Amino acid sequence: MSPKITTELLKQLRQVMKSPKYVQEPVQAYIVPSGDAHQSEYIAPCDCRRAFISGFDGSAGTAIVTEQHAAMWTDGRYFLQAAHQMDNNWTLMKLGLKDTPTQEDWLVSVLPEGSKVGVDPFIIPADQWKRMSKALRSAGHDLVPIKENLIDTIWTDRPQRPCKPLITLDLSYTGVNWRDKIVALRSKMAERKVPWFVVTALDEVAWLFNLRGSDVEYNPVFFAYAVIGMNTIRLFIDGGRMMDPAVREHLQLDSTLEPEFKIQVMPYGSILSELQAVGASLSPKEKVWISDKASYALTEAIPKAYRYLTPYTPICIAKAVKNASETEGMRRAHIKDAVALCELFNWLEKEVPKGTVTEIIAADKAEEFRSQQKDFVELSFATISSTGPNGAIIHYKPVPETNRTLSVNEIYLLDSGAQYKDGTTDVTRTVHFGTPSAYEKECFTYVLKGHIAVSAAIFPNGTKGHLLDSFARSALWDCGLDYLHGTGHGVGSFLNVHEGPCGISYKTFADEPLEAGMIVSDEPGYYEDGSFGIRIENVVLVIPAETKYNFKNRGSLTFEPLTLVPIQTKMIDVNLLTEKECNWVNDYHRKCREVIGAELERQGRHEALQWLIRETEPVIRVQ
Amino acid sequence: MSPKITTELLKQLRQVMKSPKYVQEPVQAYIVPSGDAHQSEYIAPCDCRRAFISGFDGSAGTAIVTEQHAAMWTDGRYFLQAAHQMDNNWTLMKLGLKDTPTQEDWLVSVLPEGSKVGVDPFIIPADQWKRMSKALRSAGHDLVPIKENLIDTIWTDRPQRPCKPLITLDLSYTGVNWRDKIVALRSKMAERKVPWFVVTALDEVAWLFNLRGSDVEYNPVFFAYAVIGMNTIRLFIDGGRMMDPAVREHLQLDSTLEPEFKIQVMPYGSILSELQAVGASLSPKEKVWISDKASYALTEAIPKAYRYLTPYTPICIAKAVKNASETEGMRRAHIKDAVALCELFNWLEKEVPKGTVTEIIAADKAEEFRSQQKDFVELSFATISSTGPNGAIIHYKPVPETNRTLSVNEIYLLDSGAQYKDGTTDVTRTVHFGTPSAYEKECFTYVLKGHIAVSAAIFPNGTKGHLLDSFARSALWDCGLDYLHGTGHGVGSFLNVHEGPCGISYKTFADEPLEAGMIVSDEPGYYEDGSFGIRIENVVLVIPAETKYNFKNRGSLTFEPLTLVPIQTKMIDVNLLTEKECNWVNDYHRKCREVIGAELERQGRHEALQWLIRETEPVIRVQ
Repeated sequence: MSPKITTELLKQLRQVMKSPKYVQEPVQAYIVPSGDAHQSEYIAPCDCRRAFISGFDGSAGTAIVTEQHAAMWTDGRYFLQAAHQMDNNWTLMKLGLKDTPTQEDWLVSVLPEGSKVGVDPFIIPADQWKRMSKALRSAGHDLVPIKENLIDTIWTDRPQRPCKPLITLDLSYTGVNWRDKIVALRSKMAERKVPWFVVTALDEVAWLFNLRGSDVEYNPVFFAYAVIGMNTIRLFIDGGRMMDPAVREHLQLDSTLEPEFKIQVMPYGSILSELQAVGASLSPKEKVWISDKASYALTEAIPKAYRYLTPYTPICIAKAVKNASETEGMRRAHIKDAVALCELFNWLEKEVPKGTVTEIIAADKAEEFRSQQKDFVELSFATISSTGPNGAIIHYKPVPETNRTLSVNEIYLLDSGAQYKDGTTDVTRTVHFGTPSAYEKECFTYVLKGHIAVSAAIFPNGTKGHLLDSFARSALWDCGLDYLHGTGHGVGSFLNVHEGPCGISYKTFADEPLEAGMIVSDEPGYYEDGSFGIRIENVVLVIPAETKYNFKNRGSLTFEPLTLVPIQTKMIDVNLLTEKECNWVNDYHRKCREVIGAELERQGRHEALQWLIRETEPVIRVQ
Repeated sequence: MSPKITTELLKQLRQVMKSPKYVQEPVQAYIVPSGDAHQSEYIAPCDCRRAFISGFDGSAGTAIVTEQHAAMWTDGRYFLQAAHQMDNNWTLMKLGLKDTPTQEDWLVSVLPEGSKVGVDPFIIPADQWKRMSKALRSAGHDLVPIKENLIDTIWTDRPQRPCKPLITLDLSYTGVNWRDKIVALRSKMAERKVPWFVVTALDEVAWLFNLRGSDVEYNPVFFAYAVIGMNTIRLFIDGGRMMDPAVREHLQLDSTLEPEFKIQVMPYGSILSELQAVGASLSPKEKVWISDKASYALTEAIPKAYRYLTPYTPICIAKAVKNASETEGMRRAHIKDAVALCELFNWLEKEVPKGTVTEIIAADKAEEFRSQQKDFVELSFATISSTGPNGAIIHYKPVPETNRTLSVNEIYLLDSGAQYKDGTTDVTRTVHFGTPSAYEKECFTYVLKGHIAVSAAIFPNGTKGHLLDSFARSALWDCGLDYLHGTGHGVGSFLNVHEGPCGISYKTFADEPLEAGMIVSDEPGYYEDGSFGIRIENVVLVIPAETKYNFKNRGSLTFEPLTLVPIQTKMIDVNLLTEKECNWVNDYHRKCREVIGAELERQGRHEALQWLIRETEPVIRVQ
């Protein structure tokens, strides 16, 4: 990996920062955030502006360029990568280290008095704008919105914004048609007496209209906004894709519908002016509901007194609670996914000892097996295929420079998943193709105990996921071990593999209480730098739990694993398990054998079936 | 309990709300918060203004009186009590219920346009002022500070502010003299470049100067403020108590000291003007450090740009981490406290079957035994002595109207503690003097499992207490049970029985990470309305834990029980315990027998010793 040479680019950027063609007044600093206009986690190539200007292409990082300096803030996952990818025009600001200044403090320390700091108002979330603007103002500077993105003005070969065809999802996948979703949304709006709602997150637009796209890799979404009124629906979307007869029929664009379900299709770029028009038309006490993470540009389009901001939108919350059709789809997707992984691990077991399988080959093979399954669309994230020391790099993705060959002497960690038309998967298994050491087994078993502690946990209705996080760590903590990431995230239904508003993490964020029908991952781990990584991840469904008593009639919840892939028993030190944990493993494997066995049989995959049967033999405690 | 008749009082209050003698302009509403000027949890009789105006004397509640209405906001603990104590001039606003309006919303709904809402600026915390003022302003009203407390103007027989003699604590109790505490505080101030610090909480003043008082029942504190500069110390305190030679010597008031340790004693009432003078003297960039929970009056005394607000002060954090002398003192206090409880339970065992022991008699007897111990000062809170259904009332305090006789047929819960000159105790035991039912034993055992899960937990350095809360609930949750309070609170060292900044609770508050030397309670429970209450509480010390491994060299922590009172084994269903839990109980009882047995022996309390020996027999699992 050699660094990108940015001297010329920075020179150009500094020129446009002073050019009256683009800025009303020169700006002394320009901020280049990570995201897109929808605050997406995964972004399209045309939105990778920070990578373009700096060379650093990790998933998180903010660049700030002043007349004299160029600095990049990123977190511990990316210190090494950023250092490798950036030339020495750039200063790396390591987030989380004690002496690293905040962006605001750094700006204040380097800027001349009374400076202007520019940023694209579509890219910066409103809450971030507010914080930064306040800090700069109190130091005598100004944060100013620059309408034209200055990176785009110097990015000559910037890719087009993708505009790929849409997929329509019928009732058998979604369980609820889009009109009923609009009705439910409007009833939430009526409850809060808010007559307008702005949909800014891409997965929320996709979910609301039962449409999917492929504008962003791994995420089946498309670039669009929507504005929902009590009697109007406006969809802001570009391109010929609205000409597709299937889409037109799905959205009933050519039917005579009740007026409140008539969708007005408008250009993607017109959202701002339309929202401003809505803002200007409001009567007193009328408000517009918008996420507090929406862009500064859209938030500002609504006069302050008319904004109704919430951290989670009603769509985000409704989307998280899967209905029966979605749950059944997720089950089907996970069965197919397990079939692919049984094939893969059976294949690896035979091939790895030959010394010809690299991390990349294994990842490709996993994709190949998945792609043979019905309704396969694409992967749900970049496969983490890592052996030995690479397994300790939590967000590792094999590239030719790091690609390692799997062997019978090292632990192999595979974290992978796919998008099927009926559901999204995300599974991690950690295996050994030879004989694991006692220490490796010990660590694996603690991780497994944590995985089981969450998966088998029973907890009252209304419990927030972060209250379960310590269950996943307890066995590791007892021995002085831990892992430095959260335990679980929400998972979409043929949507983003990471979604809110629920999760399981020690970081106290405003997670919403878990409810039956929500789907999250359960993925504790243990990582030993330079040696190995262990993670055991299932996607689990929140279900009602039967309990002996029922305090205050609240009801209880627990989890049902949707992922049904054997957990390698060779890696387990069975005597570290309690009887209850041992039974959990055996019950889980019985279910894998029954459900996935039947599907392997049906698909005529006899060798993989034999592998499954071998791998699901019960474990027995000798104590 | 008959309600207080408040018609005449409310009439008088409404008159002074319009009287130019007290208010510049009439106020249409007057807020009477619960607290005192130091945001204390326990308050002196002269500060019980809300109880005076309404009759409701629970520990939490806010009264608002308008020209037409009088309303009281309180939480679930007090719905019944408030309803009984208030006459029908008052509307009870039940906090936590869905339809209960916030104070702001209610005010907006009842006030005429452009109203003024008054409040005593010394009683309302700055953060609460800010929230309320903003809400009122956005509805066209004004929150205004009323210098003279309007309740005091109509409270003819208002008690004097207490001004009791002080106790000086020497190095053997405190481990650090007050000058070194000032030095440490100034070094924290220097670190943050803040040259002034305002001490507003009563326990912080007491801790800083190694003084104790008895102005507030149960809390060994005294009314005072302090303002610490880099070279000055100002103590704001009233009365002849500064004439006490012991106090003068302790504070070296008459010695020739380095000027930076010279204490200027000033009248309690002069804090505001002195702080305003400090505020006016500041040069740019100089700031004044004050808790964000300090009163609006004091916060306003410092110009906004000069305020440095933090949720926890450096004193609060330093106070929480007990040094070796304090820890040893706490150990001694808990040994003495255990001796008293062994005597009590031995006495109860003999007396209860006679049917002559009421809750009040038992509470008095507990105090009697405690008062026989060396350095006993007073109780640390009102004893919760509750039998049968009264045990399910979490904050129960027996009064003649509710006083129940202990019997061999009901569970008895005793939550009590004391202030000794060397430490503060707080212990809950739940016992049965006859034969508990299988169900009672089952519930008790789940609570015990939760208690042990916290007490025996091992967790990394830097872990916040709220991450341990679910451990206390897991066994209850498994059966569909739970309890509706937090699991633990910080405990002072001969100071307030509840103190910050650490705790163990599902409520995510900004708790500081646990550190070796901190002391918290571990008190899960289970309550069945109308039947019984169970709680098992020890005070525990955070200590370093030995672990097999040491991830990232972070080190681990665990707890050591300071409370050493037997947990009634008769109440335990031993077969619900794991082997590890069973060993914990037996190890704990072995320690009780050794440590408390030796002290009972030394004090010649032979009968109580025999009781202790009987009660600490090991339990044996039959599985």
